[in-house]
Formats: sequence, C-alpha cells, structure tokens
Amino acid sequence: MLDKADSPEKLKKLGETQLNELCCRIREKIIETVSRNGGHLAPNLGTVELTVALHRVFHCPEDKIFFDVGHQSYTHKILTGREENFSSLRLDDGLSPFPSRKESPYDPFIAGHAGSALSAAMGFAAERDLRKGSEHIIAVVGDGSLINGVSMEALNNVRSSCKNLIIVLNDNKMSISSSVGALRHYLNRIITGTAYNRFKAAVKMAVKRLPSGKGLIGNIQKMEAAVKSLIVPGFFFEELGIRYVGPVNGHDIPEMVKTFSSVKKFNRPVLVHVITEKGHGCDYAVKAPERYHGVSAFDPDTGLSEPSSQKTFSAVFGETLCKEAQKDKRIVAVTAAMPSGTGLSAFARKYPERFFDTGITEGHAMTFAAGLAASGMKAVIPMYATFLQRALDNLFHDICLQDLPAVICADRAGLVEDGPTHHGFSDLPFLLSMPFLSILAPKDPEELSSMLSAALQYDHPVLLRYPRGGCILSEYSLETTPLQWGKAEVLKEGKDLLIWAMGKECKTALQTVEILEKNHISCTVVNGRFYKPFDKDLFLSYAEKMPVVTIEDALAGTGVDTITDSLLVYRKNPFFVRHFSWPEDKIIPHGTMEGIREKFHFTAGKIAEEILKEFKKSNG
Amino acid sequence: MLDKADSPEKLKKLGETQLNELCCRIREKIIETVSRNGGHLAPNLGTVELTVALHRVFHCPEDKIFFDVGHQSYTHKILTGREENFSSLRLDDGLSPFPSRKESPYDPFIAGHAGSALSAAMGFAAERDLRKGSEHIIAVVGDGSLINGVSMEALNNVRSSCKNLIIVLNDNKMSISSSVGALRHYLNRIITGTAYNRFKAAVKMAVKRLPSGKGLIGNIQKMEAAVKSLIVPGFFFEELGIRYVGPVNGHDIPEMVKTFSSVKKFNRPVLVHVITEKGHGCDYAVKAPERYHGVSAFDPDTGLSEPSSQKTFSAVFGETLCKEAQKDKRIVAVTAAMPSGTGLSAFARKYPERFFDTGITEGHAMTFAAGLAASGMKAVIPMYATFLQRALDNLFHDICLQDLPAVICADRAGLVEDGPTHHGFSDLPFLLSMPFLSILAPKDPEELSSMLSAALQYDHPVLLRYPRGGCILSEYSLETTPLQWGKAEVLKEGKDLLIWAMGKECKTALQTVEILEKNHISCTVVNGRFYKPFDKDLFLSYAEKMPVVTIEDALAGTGVDTITDSLLVYRKNPFFVRHFSWPEDKIIPHGTMEGIREKFHFTAGKIAEEILKEFKKSNG
Repeated sequence: MLDKADSPEKLKKLGETQLNELCCRIREKIIETVSRNGGHLAPNLGTVELTVALHRVFHCPEDKIFFDVGHQSYTHKILTGREENFSSLRLDDGLSPFPSRKESPYDPFIAGHAGSALSAAMGFAAERDLRKGSEHIIAVVGDGSLINGVSMEALNNVRSSCKNLIIVLNDNKMSISSSVGALRHYLNRIITGTAYNRFKAAVKMAVKRLPSGKGLIGNIQKMEAAVKSLIVPGFFFEELGIRYVGPVNGHDIPEMVKTFSSVKKFNRPVLVHVITEKGHGCDYAVKAPERYHGVSAFDPDTGLSEPSSQKTFSAVFGETLCKEAQKDKRIVAVTAAMPSGTGLSAFARKYPERFFDTGITEGHAMTFAAGLAASGMKAVIPMYATFLQRALDNLFHDICLQDLPAVICADRAGLVEDGPTHHGFSDLPFLLSMPFLSILAPKDPEELSSMLSAALQYDHPVLLRYPRGGCILSEYSLETTPLQWGKAEVLKEGKDLLIWAMGKECKTALQTVEILEKNHISCTVVNGRFYKPFDKDLFLSYAEKMPVVTIEDALAGTGVDTITDSLLVYRKNPFFVRHFSWPEDKIIPHGTMEGIREKFHFTAGKIAEEILKEFKKSNG
Repeated sequence: MLDKADSPEKLKKLGETQLNELCCRIREKIIETVSRNGGHLAPNLGTVELTVALHRVFHCPEDKIFFDVGHQSYTHKILTGREENFSSLRLDDGLSPFPSRKESPYDPFIAGHAGSALSAAMGFAAERDLRKGSEHIIAVVGDGSLINGVSMEALNNVRSSCKNLIIVLNDNKMSISSSVGALRHYLNRIITGTAYNRFKAAVKMAVKRLPSGKGLIGNIQKMEAAVKSLIVPGFFFEELGIRYVGPVNGHDIPEMVKTFSSVKKFNRPVLVHVITEKGHGCDYAVKAPERYHGVSAFDPDTGLSEPSSQKTFSAVFGETLCKEAQKDKRIVAVTAAMPSGTGLSAFARKYPERFFDTGITEGHAMTFAAGLAASGMKAVIPMYATFLQRALDNLFHDICLQDLPAVICADRAGLVEDGPTHHGFSDLPFLLSMPFLSILAPKDPEELSSMLSAALQYDHPVLLRYPRGGCILSEYSLETTPLQWGKAEVLKEGKDLLIWAMGKECKTALQTVEILEKNHISCTVVNGRFYKPFDKDLFLSYAEKMPVVTIEDALAGTGVDTITDSLLVYRKNPFFVRHFSWPEDKIIPHGTMEGIREKFHFTAGKIAEEILKEFKKSNG
C-alpha cells in the first residue's frame, strides 16, 4: 500500500477508506526506523494525518510546504519519493532528519531552528505575487514555535508582505516540553470554546436589536467588521490581518481535506488551527511525549531503551546546580523550552519559584536573565549551543556590555548527530569577542561540576561550553588539579610534543598519545580549560620548546587555533604547528558521531598519523 | 526653574501650573544641546511630558524605569541629577546618549538595541516578586519597538514571569521612519475607536437581555470575563494577560498623572497606551520626524544643517542599487526599519513593489530575504552592523547553510559616535565562520559601487562591510584596479614594510605612510578588499620579504589580524608583525570619532610612531 503512495499524485488516487490504513503503515515505518536509528518520534507521529491531508489537497512541488523546525517532516519525506531510502534516516550518508533543498525538490527550504518557516514562506509568497503566480504556499508551525520572536515578527508582517499564505497551526500544546505563555492560554480558551460560544449568541442578539439611525448607517461597515472579528474565536489572529479557521481535528483526514480545500480559495492570509496529539497512535509516546520527542534507539514494542552507562554533562550540570541552589537562594535558572534536555528537571521540581521556562524564546530568555542578574540574582541559562545563536546579541548587549554576573551553559556544543543546523560550532567566534566573558570547557562532567561552582562565585559573565553526552576518563587515572581561574591543567608531561586540547577532546588527545608513545614520541598533554582568559604563560612555556598540536570540537579558525597562532607568530623557533578541528566552509553533515569523525579524519588514529608525518618531515 | 527640578523629589514639589513651563525649558535645553552636539531630537521632544508625568507619580530610583532603545531618555537624564552635565551629551567623556548603569542609579539597565526593555524589566520584576518587594517596575516601549521579536516574546511571558509590571506604550506611529505591520493597524483602530464604541454599546445591551438558566449560571464568570475583555479596546493585550488602559494623551500631564496613579494600584501587568507626537513642540521636527530622529549639528532656529561635502557609503549604495534594479527585475530590497539611513529611500520610491520594510524585525527580515533568494530573487539587505547581531542566526541558518545568493550590507560597521551599544564591531568574527559567505570591505564609496554590482552577479551569499559617513581618497591620485573576486589591490609599492588595510582604513594607512616616508621607510600599501576569500598569495608574497602591519576598524582578535597571524605562523623570517584595531575586553565609549581614535591611539600619527619603534627595535 505504501508503494502506491510514494508520490503526492499517487496519494491522491487512493480511496478515502485506504487512507487510514496508509496512516497506520506510515506510523509503523516511523516507529520502526526511529527505534533503530534514533530521531524525532512523538512530533512525527502527531502529524501523519495532517501531512496526508495536505498532500491530498495541495500539488507539490509547485505548491510549497514549509515545516517549521522540520522535526515533523518524516511523513512528508515518505510521501514524496523518499520512502525507500527512509530506513537510512539519520545514518551516515542517509536521509537527513530535517527538510533539505539538496535532498528533494519537495523541500523548498532548510529547517532546524524554530520560527523560520513563516518568514521563509512569506519570501516565497512575495516572489509569487511579484510574478503573479498562483501556487499555494503553506507554512506548518507548531504552537511552541509560533511564540518565537521570528514567528511573531513574521505574523505582524504577513498582511503587508504577501497576498495570501496558508498557515497551519499544528497545536499539540507542546514545544519539546509543555508550551508556556499567554498565547498558549489563549489557544486553550479557543479550544474549550465555552465562553466564546455563549458570547457569540449574545452578540447575534445584540446585532438584531441595534437601534437604527443616521450615525449608525455611516458606520455600518465598520460595525460589521468589528462584530465579525469578535464572533470568531481567532480574534487575536484576525487583528493581525489573518483569517482564522478552526479548530480542526488533526487526526480526522476528511475534516482537514474539507477545510484545506476551502481555504485554498481564500485570497488572503489564513491560519488553520489544527489540534494534534503528540505521539498519536503509539501508547508510550502519547503518555510521555517529552521523553519521546527526540530519542536514541529503543525497543519498538515497549518503548524502552538501554539505560546509558555514563553520566552526561547535562545531568551533572543539573545535579550541581541543585546543590549550589540549596546553599544560595539567589541562584535562579532560565530556560528557553529546554528544561529536561539541559538537565534542569530536578531544579524545576525543587525550586519552582526560581525556575523560569520562557518557551522557545532564546533572545528574551537571555535578556530576562540579564534583568535578573542586574537586580542581584545569580542567573544560570543553559541553552543548546546552536540555539544560543539566536541570543548572541542579547548576551552581548544585555549581559556582557554591562559585565553582569551570569552563567551561560552552551550544552550540545560541537558535533551532534542531527547535522548542519544543529552542530554547536558557530557560537564560539562571536563569544570570544564579547567583553568580560570568560569561556570554559570541561574535559569531563566532573570538571563541569567544579567549573559551575566556581562560575557561580565569579562576579562577571561566564560561559561553560560542553558537548552532548558524557565522557569517561577513568582509564587514564589522571590526577586532577583544582580549578584556578585562567589556568590550564597539565595532564601529562613529555618532551617531544605539546598537545593542547579543549574540553572533551582531552580524551582524543590521550588516545592520540597512546599511539604516539608507541612510536617513541613523548608528549605533554594540556587540558586548556579556559578559552578565555587563555593561559598564555603555560602555553608559551611549552611552545617555546617543542612542536604544538591543538585539538578542539570547533570550526577551524574560530577557537584555540587562532588564539595560539596569534601567540606563535612571535615564536622564534622552527617547530611545527598543527591544528585539529572541523574544516571551515564545509557542510558537516548529520550521521553517527563516529561516522562523521571518520569522514573528516577527526579521530585519534588519523590525528596521530598526521603528527607522525610532521615529525618525519622535520627530521627528514 | 530647571534648577528646582533636577531630582524627582524636587519635581514632585512643583505646582501643576509650573509643569508646562518646565517642559518648555526642558525642550529648549534638548534642542539647544542636540543642535550643538548632535543626537536624537524628535524622539526626545515627544516624551518630555510623558517623562515628567512618570517622575511625578513614581519614586525612582526605588521604582525603576526602563526606556526601550533609550533614545528617548534625555528628559529622564535632565530630571535625575544630570542637568548640569547635559551640555556634554555625546561629547568625549561626556554624558552617554543612552541609559547607563555606570552613569546613574536612576538608569537600572543599558539600552541601545530595540526590544530589550520589557525582558529586562521583567527580570527586575521577577526578582522583586521573589523578594516580596513592592516597588514599581515601568517599561517605556515605542510602538515601533513593540513588534520586535524580543518584545513579543516578552509580552507572551509577562503574566507567567511577574506579578505586576507597568508597560507604557509610547505610540508615535513611528520607529525611525513610519511604523509598519498589522499591530500598527490595530493600534490605529484603537485610536480612532469608532467601531469599538458602537460595539461597546451593543454588548452592554446584549448583556442586559441575556436569558437566565442553569447552564448560564455555571458559565457566568467565564462569560463576564469574555465580555469584559471584549468591551475594552485593547483586547489583543488583554488576551496576553495584560490589562489595557488608554489611549491617553501623551502631552497632557494631568491626564497621565491620573492614569499612572491609578494603574500603580493594579496588582497585575498593565499596558498604558500613550499617544505622543514625535518632535512635539518643535515645528521642523514635527514636520519631518524621520529626518530629525537622529541628527548631526544644526541651526536650532531653522533646523537646517550644512550640507555634507562628501558622499556617504549609504548614498552610493542606494544609487548603485537603483541602477542595477533598472537592469535586473529580480533585485529586491529588504530593510528592518532603516530605509533612509541605509540609503534605500530612492529605491523605495522607484520600486515600491520590490521594496519591503518589515519594521524593527532583523531576524524575520533576514529569513524573509532568504525566502526571496531561495525562490529566485536577488535579495539585498542593508542593515546597521550593530543591529545585524540580531539576525546572525538567520543569516547563518537560512542564507549561508543553503548557500543562497543574497547581498547583505553591514552599514555603520566599525566605530560610530553613539558608543558601546552601537559600534559595529562584534559581527565580524561570527560572519567569518559562516559557510560560503564572502566578506568584502570597500576603501571608499566608489569601490562600494563596484563591489555591489559584482556581488549581485555572484551566485553565493556576499556581505559588504562599510562604515558610517564617506571617505575621500582623491588627494592620493590612486590608480584603481578592477575588482577581481578574492583579490586584494596594491595601492602603493615599497620595499621596507607591508601595510595591509581593510576598507576605509586604507586612508589611515596612506596617512601613516606619509609620515613613515619622511622617515625613509618605503611602504607597500594593500587594500585588502576581501576578508573572505582572503588573498593569501598576495599577502604571503610580501610577508615573506618584509615586516607586516595590518589596520582595520574591527575588534582585536576578530578580523584580518587573526587571518594573517594564522598564515604568518608558518613564516620562517624574523620580521616584525603589528596589528592595529580596537582593543578587546575594553568598552569603547561614545564621543567624537576623532576623540575616540585619539584616546585609543588609533590615528595615523600614533600608528606611525609605533611602527618607527618597531624598526628601531629591529635595527637596535
């Protein structure tokens, strides 16, 4: 049956009764693939019927669908020629977990960061209007994403930027976790509808009984417009010049097909309010939609996965924060819709009044935290590094320029599995330029704990940068030295080579050393600890005497490589210098961490090989 | 009289009749000072009465006022102990043109970028609530700024973040230029009010005539809430959990005092809609509020200023764009409320359908432009470099990752007079890390013209970076070479020293050379032209043979200094290297361009002096 629906045209030929069966099959395929490869489960299960209904009514790729964030586009991929390849989802060289222009003509635009679909779709719609085209432009936006600043800026501009646009509000009452904020309450009032239904009746009666007269006749049109806008539930959107239609059951294909067919004819922007259930059709996902938002491999029957053997950076961050918060009442935490992913769940339960989840609003969250810091609180703001890019100006303008004591945690920094929109690479160069901001990178979760404690005692802004997952260094039986501000840590002394590693790459460095020592090269390994202030003295004390290698999970030309180059320029000796990081001007793809590292020769084996070549060159 | 009101406490002792006279005096002082020192005229003239009314009612600094953007805070400065110093506004070591925590306890928070006041104020309010404090927190936000994404994100969070907050919507129907968008139309409908007034009557009648019965009694509270929210004009805000009050005449002090005194008692967030006139009380400013938004020195009687003798980069950008747009219909321009400042006025008049002003929404503007580019248009997006910081993620995610052909113009890059919140410094490091983005810096407006033409022919993203004002190089009778992608331009050949200058700093380089040549040092001067792709070959061909100096209007460690250091690390000769730029981790203040350059030794004279020292060291 799925074979018969691997293109929107074939889908249109199926009978209505076949559609439910199709949806079951798609759901099975999604569960099976995600349980094997990991990925976004609950958001995709919630949008199966919605996507089928869209492709029944619209004609892609002429008509264009923009999935905001894109973590709900699996059904779209399956229905647009990518079914066969779907089992390769998220694997090395496999299907991208997000929409991709390169992958398919059915994907008009990239997605990954929340809130961009409306703006991008409006760009396409504006081009269509200039060309006097007639295709349909559809933006599918979740309720969690609609309150993002970019979405809101777009909403305010819809009417003036394009003649028509179909906004599908995919309302599942959640972002990654539960949605928050006033607009959420507003949507709830729409869905329950009681107050409005009563009111509608009252208004109708009032209109019947209006006195007639001169003044009234002149204003009758305005009057009508006002009444009309008030009796529909989507007044908020109507006031923004967007016709509101709904709410519609997002798991009822005929109802949606009817609605989409009707709004297709509108010659103005319209928002269709579709109610979906996150995780629909899969018991464990419905019961715990946050847990099954994005997942690693699991048992498709039970939903259970093997417990991770190692403690993550995020978990240790959360534990340490709770401990510190018990001692210091001024500690508060702010998150932009990433409470559990960043390890804040326990803090949120223990200290609800000191915990602020602002929804997917990175910019506001950062400035709000700046306000808290300026008024004497110790604000801690963990954020995925890639989403931190949305708050860079706020961090610069509101925290760093004022030298406020706040602790920003860039979680999931460096390489991740989700691909170019999600790698935490690009924040670092901008961060390094910010006044007064210290930037630290812990080699393992334990070190993160001591860094967080120290940062909370420091009277200036601090950023802690760490990757997804954990890191175990116990096999190296390292003697750890206490944290000193601005000082690096020597992990190992040797006379032939300095390896200066940042954060978790200390492990890569130690693995590299194992190979090099077999080749009789004696290495010094330093855990850099601080990007800023950088430990120049320690670095130069070694760099004057031996070749230098740096290793960091960052883009080339943006981190410790440029910092050390600027010091090495003045070095008078002939020793070689090599930097290992991610190449600039390349798209680092999605895939397994190991697979991507292999592809870009960013493994201990390859690094050792390169270093050995350098030694041969120097000696030869 | 002003002497009697140099503190909020003294202001409160004045009789009501004295207040109008006070406002006249303040207005005179503002006009006189701005006509001499330059600054923001029209926004400040519009908020004299509003600020007086606020300080009559509230008790600062315990109560706290947050001025969004801060370009309307002059009256606040005058009334809070800074009257005497006010004549030093914007001068070197003088009063800051924006709120500053360092300057006064009456300024609780920095301002400069639009949209941050609400979030910051909410941070203070949340801290107050945790402490169970009772002071009032007031955020003054313009209608142009309210639609900014950060403001909208904040609005959605007000109710959940703090118990009460007073939002003063300073509605003058303008950002720098006329406000745009759906919310603007909504505010207009509130102000005219006719439809609502009629409707109010209808609703009242309906409520009287409602049938009674079982079902109704259960719902009576919901019903009341719905009716109440609908009969007030600020339904949009009420739906966000914010009580709406207004509109109020922003030039009627007694009316405002009455309103503020009343909302003070509310135990919930409230928005007071205050209608002001931009430029109020000054004929020429009222007639041309955009022109008198921010101004250089002028004649206070006539408003006239001496016409500038040199063509600005912005003006030449606009002219070139119009010429190119005539030839190529696919060229469109997008601005985030900076149409005239960036030189787009003529384009907007000639090609209204290809011109998009999105309001103060940098993030949306960039992604909207990405949509236009992805659908086949050639999108040009000029933006002040400092505000570009709000759109960095959008530029990265929506334009660069997709390698879309769009031309971003970072106007007012580098040093400006307005101080730390406005210098265009911090964008560059992040920009350099973006995939596929070429970054060019023209030495003068003429070169900007050829760069813009070339960029419009280039099939990848391009960023042009240029400063405020102009640059005349005619005295040097340079022979200009045609632009070649990725190639620098040799302006002068010499054997003792390479000076590699970026953009307008070519002029500084040429001035420096005049001094050096008197000291018998023969210089090569290169106009770098490209930050990326950087002309490594040309650079190394000189750098192998002679010492290297770089000059750029950027932060140390973020531009051509790190690019060249990374090349020079592998150089085997002993020649010196010196970089001239702005120091990192220092707050570069406001002031005259000349004054700031003197203070930071960033003048041809000082640079020449430093270079001569290096030569002495090398020879000694």
